[in-house]
Amino acid sequence: MPATTLRVATGKPIEFINITQRIKRIVQESGIQEGICTIYVPHTTCGITINEAADPDVERDILKELGKIVPLHDEYLHAEGNSAAHIKTSLMGSNSSIPISDGRLLLGTWQGIFLCEFDGPRNRKVYVQIQ
Amino acid sequence: MPATTLRVATGKPIEFINITQRIKRIVQESGIQEGICTIYVPHTTCGITINEAADPDVERDILKELGKIVPLHDEYLHAEGNSAAHIKTSLMGSNSSIPISDGRLLLGTWQGIFLCEFDGPRNRKVYVQIQ
Amino acid sequence: MPATTLRVATGKPIEFINITQRIKRIVQESGIQEGICTIYVPHTTCGITINEAADPDVERDILKELGKIVPLHDEYLHAEGNSAAHIKTSLMGSNSSIPISDGRLLLGTWQGIFLCEFDGPRNRKVYVQIQ
Repeated sequence: MPATTLRVATGKPIEFINITQRIKRIVQESGIQEGICTIYVPHTTCGITINEAADPDVERDILKELGKIVPLHDEYLHAEGNSAAHIKTSLMGSNSSIPISDGRLLLGTWQGIFLCEFDGPRNRKVYVQIQ
Repeated sequence: MPATTLRVATGKPIEFINITQRIKRIVQESGIQEGICTIYVPHTTCGITINEAADPDVERDILKELGKIVPLHDEYLHAEGNSAAHIKTSLMGSNSSIPISDGRLLLGTWQGIFLCEFDGPRNRKVYVQIQ
Repeated sequence: MPATTLRVATGKPIEFINITQRIKRIVQESGIQEGICTIYVPHTTCGITINEAADPDVERDILKELGKIVPLHDEYLHAEGNSAAHIKTSLMGSNSSIPISDGRLLLGTWQGIFLCEFDGPRNRKVYVQIQ
């Protein structure tokens, strides 16, 4: 089954975009009952993470703390000025694999899937492969 | 093949639980000779990592250093008071995929699979999907 | 299909090794048109990450900043003296899953796959499993 491409237009320099419902729809439309859903971000200043989707303060805390761990400016060499975004992308990762059971993603009650924009706003792509 | 659910009762606020033997048993019982084992944690204050299982000081050093990178209290907004646990979960990740060859997980000599409890003690679940 | 083993001799204590071309070749030789390529590092002081491969300053910035986030010496307990390498490995992760479409890895334009040596130089292995 070929990968599906999601298109996500981010609106801020740094933000999380909740893509859970869009991923769930792709899983549902695939008709696959048991398998794995692989989510892959083909960018280098934008990652993916799974975390709490109920209280938006959790996203804010993660983003704020990542900003402390990896300062925006820190004598980086890369001339484009977005090294912090590259580093945060490696910390969050570019891919995630979630089991599918009875036709549904095995997400926990509080879990959501977030595209992590670290150098926006930009037009981003997310590949979703179901097996 | 449907995912298997492991149940793990953690005993401390913050600790690593070695689940390597339990995952190996699931792989063995599946009878799969060549494939991928996907391990998925459906929680938002508990992650998964693969690291050295021989010397317990490695786990202690990882946990202690994570505690320095992400302080327990840092003017977080999330009212539940466990933002550090959420942030550490995103740093470690919620899933891992390990190849299976000749019926065995391709773990390295020193590698173990650890559930990372950051907001315990709690009853946790781990999904294991073999393909 | 059995996993393929790549052998990588690293040359420095800390460095990124671009293994993109070698992974692409394995995908091509597999003949698989649609699927997932899982890359797995069986070591505990060496990880894997996907990030920009065009400007080597990006690798340098990531490595330098990781060195600030996780100091080489910080009263670690592990007697081998390489705790920082273990911690960085957990931050980068040991595995990555990339979709394959039309026989090609769905890497983004700027993305490369890097073995992250944190305790070299050593002879390292990378397992590549295609499904």
